[in-house]
Amino acid sequence: MTIEPKVLKGFRDILPADEIARKRLIEKIEDGFRSYGFVPIDTPVLEYSEVLFGKAGGETEKQVYRFNDNGGRDVAMRFDLTVPFARFIAAHKNDITFPFKRYHIAKAWRGENSQRGRYREFIQCDFDIIGSNSAASDFEILHSMYKILKTVAGEKVNIHINHRGLFNAYLSKLGLLDKSVEILRTVDKLGKLGREETLKLLSEIAGEDKAKDVLDYVGIKGSYEETLDAMIAIVGKSPHTERLALIHRFLLDARIVDSVVLDPSITRGLDYYTGIVFESFFTELQEIGSICSGGRYDNLVGLYSKDTIPGVGTSIGIDRLIAGLEALGRLDKVQTYASIAIACINESSSGSYQALAAKLREKNIPTEVLLEEEKLTRQFQLAEKKGIHWIIIPDAENPLERPLTLRDLRKRENREGLKIEEIIDLVTR
Amino acid sequence: MTIEPKVLKGFRDILPADEIARKRLIEKIEDGFRSYGFVPIDTPVLEYSEVLFGKAGGETEKQVYRFNDNGGRDVAMRFDLTVPFARFIAAHKNDITFPFKRYHIAKAWRGENSQRGRYREFIQCDFDIIGSNSAASDFEILHSMYKILKTVAGEKVNIHINHRGLFNAYLSKLGLLDKSVEILRTVDKLGKLGREETLKLLSEIAGEDKAKDVLDYVGIKGSYEETLDAMIAIVGKSPHTERLALIHRFLLDARIVDSVVLDPSITRGLDYYTGIVFESFFTELQEIGSICSGGRYDNLVGLYSKDTIPGVGTSIGIDRLIAGLEALGRLDKVQTYASIAIACINESSSGSYQALAAKLREKNIPTEVLLEEEKLTRQFQLAEKKGIHWIIIPDAENPLERPLTLRDLRKRENREGLKIEEIIDLVTR
Repeated sequence: MTIEPKVLKGFRDILPADEIARKRLIEKIEDGFRSYGFVPIDTPVLEYSEVLFGKAGGETEKQVYRFNDNGGRDVAMRFDLTVPFARFIAAHKNDITFPFKRYHIAKAWRGENSQRGRYREFIQCDFDIIGSNSAASDFEILHSMYKILKTVAGEKVNIHINHRGLFNAYLSKLGLLDKSVEILRTVDKLGKLGREETLKLLSEIAGEDKAKDVLDYVGIKGSYEETLDAMIAIVGKSPHTERLALIHRFLLDARIVDSVVLDPSITRGLDYYTGIVFESFFTELQEIGSICSGGRYDNLVGLYSKDTIPGVGTSIGIDRLIAGLEALGRLDKVQTYASIAIACINESSSGSYQALAAKLREKNIPTEVLLEEEKLTRQFQLAEKKGIHWIIIPDAENPLERPLTLRDLRKRENREGLKIEEIIDLVTR
Repeated sequence: MTIEPKVLKGFRDILPADEIARKRLIEKIEDGFRSYGFVPIDTPVLEYSEVLFGKAGGETEKQVYRFNDNGGRDVAMRFDLTVPFARFIAAHKNDITFPFKRYHIAKAWRGENSQRGRYREFIQCDFDIIGSNSAASDFEILHSMYKILKTVAGEKVNIHINHRGLFNAYLSKLGLLDKSVEILRTVDKLGKLGREETLKLLSEIAGEDKAKDVLDYVGIKGSYEETLDAMIAIVGKSPHTERLALIHRFLLDARIVDSVVLDPSITRGLDYYTGIVFESFFTELQEIGSICSGGRYDNLVGLYSKDTIPGVGTSIGIDRLIAGLEALGRLDKVQTYASIAIACINESSSGSYQALAAKLREKNIPTEVLLEEEKLTRQFQLAEKKGIHWIIIPDAENPLERPLTLRDLRKRENREGLKIEEIIDLVTR
């Protein structure tokens, strides 16, 4: 009796071509973080449930993998990287230099219904600047988002920003501040539901007149400056509008203003944001939704510490980004990192084949040594199947001393009588 | 009331300096794998308990994080990467080209007593060649181990190899084959317990005379050839001794024979190995034990499939490797990837500072823009604390047009009147 090799619903194996593509994407993103001075940390996958659930609402709690461990502790698998980060900061605040810029790319788990390409196991990719209230740190998050998304996706990315404090000031003016959470969550769905359906929902919360006002406000469109002027005309000047004006100046000086839209409809449903909020989109693929979102919060560690530590942070949706790049034809898939193989003419020469391969690997040419003495045509097929470009056919008797044959598997052409140095030249050209 | 920001016993946070060091090590190891044509895969952290426990014994099962999920499924967190890999191969055997060379670097969990630097959450780093019985694949595992460990640790690594089949043939000759598992586990502890204690334990299993014979056999010492001759003199020639002779030829041809010891005392406690087995050590730090161990098994997927798929594989002990490198003074610790910072003279110039930084980042110079307008001496301290080498002091009015000052934070010297291109030259020299 064998056991069926099945995986749990909502979970998945990743095969090499997909895992190589995912790793390449993550490596590019990490290089981006590092180039700005963001540093990595790690936290446990399992935490005390008490630590994880202090802040999250009941909806999240129901979806979490929670259990008693063998020592009877009430534990849970993390459902995001934000809550563990808050716990981390509270625990290590004396060992950290603020402002602290960290990134964390790791798995999290939620047992939600796994429809529409949503998985119960997923990768989170978060970066935050903690311990600074400055507009400079708001801007660094926007600048790094822009540069990193541009690097991985090409030029066509737009960042939409807004200010949560300003939106709340507007709701306050309408006498709706006590309903802000409901209104924020409803406005956040505007893109999905459309104006009419959103108006209906908003009217139930705020009455029809005020609902129309809110929709007019979040519908303001124009250049950054025009939009900001229109918002000021309604809500008046404040530190929030000054912050937005300062960010506009930064965007001009850094010459990325064309990729940033001031958009009063961006609210982010989560209620802990207090300052700027933002989402970002592929302009050619708006329909897949925001691929990188976040905002400023006035206190990260309140649950674990009496200190107040503000921050601004973002999360890149890796799975969504991959889906988007794939749809745009910008995701290269390969079966291996190796570009060249060495055929196995005589298994007893395997030591020499590895010595030959070592010379290529020293020149940063990943090299696959074939491990079975088979017909050459079969070995060619095997290498081709992996997308390998070249194959070396060594001399049967003395592969290290005698000249080598190099076959171009794409053109199906052989070149004979080569030294290994000549092959290195040919394949790195 | 705040919640104590504690982590579970046996779990830990990793702070930036340690996480950067760990990531650098893992990236070097991954580069090594890729240069040989090993490819990455990923599997779920959670699996059906039935799938994970088919093969593992009761001891492992007791230590595992196992629970019922919200859908009532009996699930567990993986305790290694081998069992999920076997399940993966059985599930995807039709989508894979054999021989299949995979690596997988990821966390696993065991709730064992967390003494002596052992953690309940740890990183596994496995690489295997599946679907080949060839000596060439045995050798490729040894060759890649040697090259990768040499790259991360310097020259001084020794690999000890043996053949499990040959050892079993010897036990068979002594009439002890039915006690092979107990004997293997006991001999495996020889290094820890010493000869006398091991002899006592072995005598209880096999009687004193045979115990002495076994200890003499596993105590054979000499060059690879001398040791192999001595083993053949006792057990006779067989396909196993031929395999060891062939590997010796490969080691000679690849010129790595000086780093490999044929060592009859290497048995690897686990009972699923059937062919060559190996361990590897820092020669200067033998006492921390094997940092990379493994062997050949005749069937990986028996639990999940009627097919027979042999393989040879290895696991690098990342935590132990880090501890070893640290003890040898070969682990560099830095607080950031950035080598240069830009001081914040005037927060309203933050857009220009990012534009300046972008020019450095384009040249692969990770650059940290300081985000708070503070006294310069405080900004120098901040950058120094992170180990940053240089800091740019921009002009207060017009950082992009006016000449810049570059301060060497180690020498505490300023150079004035520089263009950004001159700074790029200076810091990349």
